[in-house]
Amino acid sequence: MKTYFDCIPCFVRQTLDSVRLVTPDEAVHERVLREVLRTAAEMDLHQTAPEMAQWIHRRIREHTGQDDPYREIKDWSNRMALKLYPTLRDWVAEASLPMETAVRLAIAGNIIDFGVNSRLSEAQVRESVTHALSASLDADVEEFSRAVSDAGRILYLADNAGEIVFDRVLIEQISPEKVTVGVKGFPAINDATMRDAEDTGMTELVEVIDNGSDAPGTILGDCSNTFLERFQNADLVIAKGQGNYETLSEADKDIYFLLKAKCPVIAADIGCQVGSLVMRRSTFSTVSAGKG
Amino acid sequence: MKTYFDCIPCFVRQTLDSVRLVTPDEAVHERVLREVLRTAAEMDLHQTAPEMAQWIHRRIREHTGQDDPYREIKDWSNRMALKLYPTLRDWVAEASLPMETAVRLAIAGNIIDFGVNSRLSEAQVRESVTHALSASLDADVEEFSRAVSDAGRILYLADNAGEIVFDRVLIEQISPEKVTVGVKGFPAINDATMRDAEDTGMTELVEVIDNGSDAPGTILGDCSNTFLERFQNADLVIAKGQGNYETLSEADKDIYFLLKAKCPVIAADIGCQVGSLVMRRSTFSTVSAGKG
Repeated sequence: MKTYFDCIPCFVRQTLDSVRLVTPDEAVHERVLREVLRTAAEMDLHQTAPEMAQWIHRRIREHTGQDDPYREIKDWSNRMALKLYPTLRDWVAEASLPMETAVRLAIAGNIIDFGVNSRLSEAQVRESVTHALSASLDADVEEFSRAVSDAGRILYLADNAGEIVFDRVLIEQISPEKVTVGVKGFPAINDATMRDAEDTGMTELVEVIDNGSDAPGTILGDCSNTFLERFQNADLVIAKGQGNYETLSEADKDIYFLLKAKCPVIAADIGCQVGSLVMRRSTFSTVSAGKG
Repeated sequence: MKTYFDCIPCFVRQTLDSVRLVTPDEAVHERVLREVLRTAAEMDLHQTAPEMAQWIHRRIREHTGQDDPYREIKDWSNRMALKLYPTLRDWVAEASLPMETAVRLAIAGNIIDFGVNSRLSEAQVRESVTHALSASLDADVEEFSRAVSDAGRILYLADNAGEIVFDRVLIEQISPEKVTVGVKGFPAINDATMRDAEDTGMTELVEVIDNGSDAPGTILGDCSNTFLERFQNADLVIAKGQGNYETLSEADKDIYFLLKAKCPVIAADIGCQVGSLVMRRSTFSTVSAGKG
């Protein structure tokens, strides 16, 4: 997905939100803000929004000297989600449609996105979970279940820390033995890295690999060869969150995107309302299916 | 009031909203957007936000070749407000506290601000009016009534087209013979100019002067000498809207600011909630009163 003009005011707002989370020093806020404005003025709009976000967050790390500015937020998110985990697992176990319930919960966890909302509270996460159980779900869960059952090797691209615990509930439903989870290679906003996979027990459940990149999404040209090989060899990819949709929506691969549409530009691109729970299979696979 | 960092993403968003209202040509949108980003990167944050807005809207007029891009919106606003006028006047006439009701309605009209909301509807204006009649009013109306009654020459700085009809209801309550209304000298977003004063009958009620400037506020250094003389000689100034607050909040003059706080940065500066109906006397006058 290309960058829309509307993404630009949002980059500027995100820059301010992020740099304020990292340091109270207004001189740093101003320096980063001016640098982002200068770069945005010349940016190539054919690149995806996460490419610009990757650049912005590198600048914030540079200017503040903090390698992992969202570490505390990620730890908080993991703890909060782990507290919820037994309840989530019980809900799926007791549900009449367990796969659908697991999909709903995995999407509900996508609310834990500090790029979109830097003031997220535990109450908002709990509200997202309650909402997801009964909200309209824009998904063909039967087709998803078949695709998952047909696939031998599934690559599950996690999005954020905390959210990764919600992903666990879905992966347990899919069957962990054929799933590999992909996390970010380096800190990127509050995206999950290997440490989050370890801290939340994901590494005990499935194989976890990192993608070698610090982009808040999956920019294939920026990922490690090891990761790319696994991506290419997967029969099916499940990609969580807006950043993965923005960077992979045109990839030549059979991908299920699972996300909560939090941004009006992405919602318009997908063709849904803001706030919707969405599962979308990539256009590529639809075309292939039509040909087959 | 200085420009806060938070004003900058808002400038970028306003630029896009405005240029889209004026032309569907995406190449123009991109050109103006990039120019605004480049300028924002270097901008002096000690200037007020309306100075930056003045610059942005000049660029939009230049790039689109339209001298008065909001003319149609201003005509629509005037017609809509004139339809409401008999009802507003009756409400004041029948009110137990007519000055307070007139103040509430004048502030309610401040919703007609296409800089803040480029998609304003008639329903939203009617809602603002209904809300204003019963909402909490952050104002000392008794003190205002005394100040107005003590003043010989009152300069009333209008804000937007359409809103000027709501101002009329308050001016009729104050006593029109001592009021001069100030409008903008040239088009500035949807701010009222002489044509709006004429189209809404304001010129038949009171003397109307223009300020010689195209800023969406009152930048004294940018106003004509004739206007400045009237400003200096007024015993009391009543200034409508956010732009006038941003540009005159530190002016050495006895000013009543009347506005609906639509922006979180201005609300924080004033010390009120977003959406509040606010009347504030300038700090200058409080200091003077203390000395007197």
